[in-house]
Amino acid sequence: MAAKTSKDIRNESRFMVLRTVYARHTVTRAQISTETGLSAATVTTLVGELVEEGVLREAGQISSQGGRPTATFQANPRRGTLLAVDVAETYVRVDLFDLSLARLGQERVELALGTQSIESIAELIGDAIGTLLERHPEVEGTVLGAGISLPGQVDPVRGVDVFAPNWGWHEVPLMEALERAVPVPVRIDNPLMALATGELWFGAGRRFRHFVAVNLGTGVGAGIILDGQLLRGPGNSAGEWGHTTLVWNGRACRCGRTGCVEAYVGVEGIRATLAEVDADHELLAVRHHRDFIERLMRAEVAGDAPAREALSRTGDYLAAGIGNLVNLLNPEHVSVLGWITRFAGYDLHDRVRARIAEECLPGPSSTVSIEFTEADGEGVSLGMAVLALEGFLEQVGLPSPSSPPAPAAAEDPGAGPRAGWAVPHRGTSSRAARR
Amino acid sequence: MAAKTSKDIRNESRFMVLRTVYARHTVTRAQISTETGLSAATVTTLVGELVEEGVLREAGQISSQGGRPTATFQANPRRGTLLAVDVAETYVRVDLFDLSLARLGQERVELALGTQSIESIAELIGDAIGTLLERHPEVEGTVLGAGISLPGQVDPVRGVDVFAPNWGWHEVPLMEALERAVPVPVRIDNPLMALATGELWFGAGRRFRHFVAVNLGTGVGAGIILDGQLLRGPGNSAGEWGHTTLVWNGRACRCGRTGCVEAYVGVEGIRATLAEVDADHELLAVRHHRDFIERLMRAEVAGDAPAREALSRTGDYLAAGIGNLVNLLNPEHVSVLGWITRFAGYDLHDRVRARIAEECLPGPSSTVSIEFTEADGEGVSLGMAVLALEGFLEQVGLPSPSSPPAPAAAEDPGAGPRAGWAVPHRGTSSRAARR
Repeated sequence: MAAKTSKDIRNESRFMVLRTVYARHTVTRAQISTETGLSAATVTTLVGELVEEGVLREAGQISSQGGRPTATFQANPRRGTLLAVDVAETYVRVDLFDLSLARLGQERVELALGTQSIESIAELIGDAIGTLLERHPEVEGTVLGAGISLPGQVDPVRGVDVFAPNWGWHEVPLMEALERAVPVPVRIDNPLMALATGELWFGAGRRFRHFVAVNLGTGVGAGIILDGQLLRGPGNSAGEWGHTTLVWNGRACRCGRTGCVEAYVGVEGIRATLAEVDADHELLAVRHHRDFIERLMRAEVAGDAPAREALSRTGDYLAAGIGNLVNLLNPEHVSVLGWITRFAGYDLHDRVRARIAEECLPGPSSTVSIEFTEADGEGVSLGMAVLALEGFLEQVGLPSPSSPPAPAAAEDPGAGPRAGWAVPHRGTSSRAARR
Repeated sequence: MAAKTSKDIRNESRFMVLRTVYARHTVTRAQISTETGLSAATVTTLVGELVEEGVLREAGQISSQGGRPTATFQANPRRGTLLAVDVAETYVRVDLFDLSLARLGQERVELALGTQSIESIAELIGDAIGTLLERHPEVEGTVLGAGISLPGQVDPVRGVDVFAPNWGWHEVPLMEALERAVPVPVRIDNPLMALATGELWFGAGRRFRHFVAVNLGTGVGAGIILDGQLLRGPGNSAGEWGHTTLVWNGRACRCGRTGCVEAYVGVEGIRATLAEVDADHELLAVRHHRDFIERLMRAEVAGDAPAREALSRTGDYLAAGIGNLVNLLNPEHVSVLGWITRFAGYDLHDRVRARIAEECLPGPSSTVSIEFTEADGEGVSLGMAVLALEGFLEQVGLPSPSSPPAPAAAEDPGAGPRAGWAVPHRGTSSRAARR
């Protein structure tokens, strides 16, 4: 069992500096020091390294009467670009970001229902990236890396999708096909880790060290952040709250177990609850997940009693599921995220708020805050862009502690050397070699 | 949000040195270095500090042909003694340890059924300590500290028992009464944290960085160890696995919720399951918890079908509850501890083993090991002795990272200055002042 090293501390400090810059856009060294608690000397060193690498740039100067002017810093959008790929069960979306994490463009492809192979997915990703980059000739040669989110239990260390029930994937090797299709350094992860990374960088992570980011969608999960770091576990599958038993001998879940949280608060769970309330409800025929949830909400607002009852019961299940997390982990905070909150956030929040005290023990209940975030549905892309950024920083010798491990290289490099999307930078190789 | 400091690293390294010494009894610096991965220079410094403080002592020398003799070290039993107090719902037990954590003596008082006040408990503790020390006049003046485990949600920072359902305690301040009765520095915690601390120092913590220590008894809980540290949470209530919902709308739990894990795998849960199988079973009349479990096991061995069925169902509930922990936390290992394992460990283990793969997702299931430890029922005492030791080390300026925070001092010191149990040591005050 190895102790933390001073390198770990340095990486954690670097992460705090970067997060402050990205969250506040333009900052002085003194502001970074105040916000992070790091010493002025440490901030000066870390900012200096990041400027040398071109990740940050001086943005201007602030003068105050009688004092020396102070430099301000920001992320350097000209340093390069990042690709974020969100592979969901019904679509593949590619977003192009600059290094200040401003979104430059987007390409989206709908997926046919039914199973997919990693080869077909990789091909779609490669085509979508090609289309997107053709529309943005100005970024040619600047892409520094790609973060690719895939459904299921993704193990970035082994480069494998351990289990993706919708496509029947078991232990599917991912890297060879992805690296053939995407000729820049690739980071893989699952949507839950992506969302939680975004929340750690830009959301509750700025205020809390111990919190849980609950993701509601077709699948559900809980990103667990302890002591300022995302809990991954040895197989990167920590957070599978959606597959913990809430209802003994309950509904069949697509994971093969029964009574899982997901079978009650995931979209198909909400549908099953509506069917229990009214087996003939017309919305049961709406197969598309977002349409179903959006129309359910509209029905509820219009006074549809079964819709109201289904949402109310969903809130009860959700409160109990969140209560389990609060009792087990005693977090400071729970953020509820995911596209469902855009449609149903208010109603679920009200119901959860009404129930949560009953579901939590008095101690943890009295100190936890619970917040529903009306997500814009783009959290996965942003999170994967951050993971791609972390991958790039690691490559140039400036890692963050929350970085996922680099994926195992495919055994057969296949498509040969990585071609022409990434632009080298003066400092890169020397720094990487130095460390 | 503060970053880790080099002091944190030093504390963690010190903990690893101490744990190696305590686990291996007599070691050379080189062995400590090999086992911990710390550099020879770091080990030399840390061992030197601990020797200076009298916590470790040179035990002898090992000579090898042609080489210089090498010093061996061990914990110094003559440095002082520690008291470990286990306040359970049916007894108060006090153990006396020397600083090598050898048990020197024990005093046990049975508690009457019914509620207790902290004043009555503190008086019992004080009396038991007095009796024990009278029997051991040789340790007069050597007691360095006491670790006191109390039932329920104990918050060591505020010095409060937030919630202890059996005695109807809500927000009961503990420190004034305890400090009046026990005139040495007091550390408080709950049995779950004590057991998990013992497992971290002497059990699975030596092999794993991410693991869960499940405690089965009258109450049940799960000590969560992540990255080599016990998860406490801001209110010290992390690990209340016993009060997570396993059975929606299930049995009433003594915490006030329904369907909690504890209501199925705690002793009263097992009794309720037996009653469901056979409402007239003769063992239902056995109120004493250990007697009930012991006789249930004997009945099962003798071929009693309802006893067998009740234990089998308990194993199913336990497997699902452990499966929830595995899916949510992706630990490397689960240790199942607690006095129930002494009686029912084999049977529960077999049943859990038969079910666990069905209860876990394929990824985390393939990497986790699950071990039932036939506990001797003294784990809480040992854990509280370790917590008292950590408190003493912190006091003399040699803290460990897993130390719980020092309790808030009682507002009214009451009994005046702490009398005569602790012996000062040459290095103590100077070192404490220096840091």
